[in-house]
Amino acid sequence: MMDARTASPHPAFALDAWMSERLAQVERALQAWVTTDTPQGAVHAAPAALVEAMRYAVLDGGKRLRPLLVLAAHEAVAPDGSGAAAALRAACAVELIHAYSLVHDDMPCMDNDVLRRGKPTVHVRFGEASALLAGDALQALAFELLTPEDGSVAPEQQARLCSLLARAAGSAGMAGGQAIDLASVGHRLTEAQLREMHQLKTGALLLGSVMMGARCGQPQAAVLAALQDYGAAMGLAFQVVDDILDVTADSSTLGKTAGKDADNDKPTYVSLMGLERSQAYAQELLAQAQQALQRSALPLAQTQALAALADMVVNRAH
Amino acid sequence: MMDARTASPHPAFALDAWMSERLAQVERALQAWVTTDTPQGAVHAAPAALVEAMRYAVLDGGKRLRPLLVLAAHEAVAPDGSGAAAALRAACAVELIHAYSLVHDDMPCMDNDVLRRGKPTVHVRFGEASALLAGDALQALAFELLTPEDGSVAPEQQARLCSLLARAAGSAGMAGGQAIDLASVGHRLTEAQLREMHQLKTGALLLGSVMMGARCGQPQAAVLAALQDYGAAMGLAFQVVDDILDVTADSSTLGKTAGKDADNDKPTYVSLMGLERSQAYAQELLAQAQQALQRSALPLAQTQALAALADMVVNRAH
Repeated sequence: MMDARTASPHPAFALDAWMSERLAQVERALQAWVTTDTPQGAVHAAPAALVEAMRYAVLDGGKRLRPLLVLAAHEAVAPDGSGAAAALRAACAVELIHAYSLVHDDMPCMDNDVLRRGKPTVHVRFGEASALLAGDALQALAFELLTPEDGSVAPEQQARLCSLLARAAGSAGMAGGQAIDLASVGHRLTEAQLREMHQLKTGALLLGSVMMGARCGQPQAAVLAALQDYGAAMGLAFQVVDDILDVTADSSTLGKTAGKDADNDKPTYVSLMGLERSQAYAQELLAQAQQALQRSALPLAQTQALAALADMVVNRAH
Repeated sequence: MMDARTASPHPAFALDAWMSERLAQVERALQAWVTTDTPQGAVHAAPAALVEAMRYAVLDGGKRLRPLLVLAAHEAVAPDGSGAAAALRAACAVELIHAYSLVHDDMPCMDNDVLRRGKPTVHVRFGEASALLAGDALQALAFELLTPEDGSVAPEQQARLCSLLARAAGSAGMAGGQAIDLASVGHRLTEAQLREMHQLKTGALLLGSVMMGARCGQPQAAVLAALQDYGAAMGLAFQVVDDILDVTADSSTLGKTAGKDADNDKPTYVSLMGLERSQAYAQELLAQAQQALQRSALPLAQTQALAALADMVVNRAH
């Protein structure tokens, strides 16, 4: 785990190697934590059928961008590795929130999507009622992960992480953004309205990931403020690029149905400002994210993963 | 607030007066906390349309049994009133979890109920997508309430309350019980299976309410164990009585559609053991709950509200 951080900043940062190690760690943790095993403090085991739907929604799929942001932000502020147990739990918790939002988003009463990550969506595979419950249970499990009873995470840390996650996921965060999205179908939004919608819908949880990772260490206020700026720019960039890919990529590359937003008459950056201006805006946001990292005044070796992830988000093909 | 606790235990406990004071307190708190106001730490305000659906689901309705249990359990262990701010937040948080579960439960893909507390259900009033999102946001808001950033609740307390609530609501609690319920339609369950289903579906959050209230004080382990027994017996009793009322009460008394369980071929205590044995079982569970309170060795004046609530749950008419 030390290689990436202690490497010279000048040779190109080996993002692939950094990622594959952390992705394996997150995957192992999710495998272990999304389970029918009776959790500590619970009287009963979780029913197997529900957990099967939860595992289907979470495991073996997804880019795991949010967990990677949590871990990269934590490593940026805690090069000695302190708080790593909390960071891994936070990484998995944000992924559970993301996963539940996709399960509910795909349901017939929302986007009615049948394909996700190249697989049938949860409600297609398990039925609508099970999808609804699996999503609900995934949200609760996220907060279970953040509040272990084994002493591995200090109570103050648990409280802070729960606070950040609840606010990122709730009515003034992700769920709020989805509500605006829902209400905006068929309406023309201003650029400011579109930005606000995305800052809530996608941005809040991406920013929350960065902040949760950072708060697993003990960063100074100026560092925290800089990482906040990084997270905000990166969160918005993610959505702009998502909108771009919705029109430029095909379904097999995306692993989900392409062109849906346009078909559904949803406002997007591309529909609002056109493809070229959207692409320029994404690059501008990437530059803002990188400038924020410089402003943090953290050693370059510690912020390389965050920098590389932002670059990956903006320049991805799917 | 001191009257009930300092009154002699021998005259009949004035549950109505005790309740009306606490119900007003909970109602005021929910009015204030389920709001479009920008929460502390949030960049954006919650969208008004989403919050309207959340408020519709939560305010001006419901027996508020779970909040009352939180407050009664807290008062049982903290006669000096310490921890009252945490207890009020916990009381509202469990109600938000309960409310979200009803919103999702009523949806067409689950129970497809159009009437709740004598009003159109949330999806009938606001549409399915909004009901889904409002439920999701209510769950997140529950954890927001437990993690205030104003210093009113100690971080260790916040962590403990989040832990208890997440486990009561999740796959080994309420959501798990709903999944068993879903899978059991049209199947004959044994009494043990039925009991397990209800211990998760309804019992976990009722027990969780008692434990969250108790943990807002500093009870000794033996007291906590006795309150755990009280909560478990009372939680099960609640469901047995619910099953009884489903066949003995009419819709206008219940404020929801009566006879649904039988119509839906859902296993219930009444279908399993008949009406008379179900009624005897409810009384037996009530006795167990009262015995547990005696075993707590808490002064009678401190446990009167818990005792009266258990009695109310078992002997209610709706």
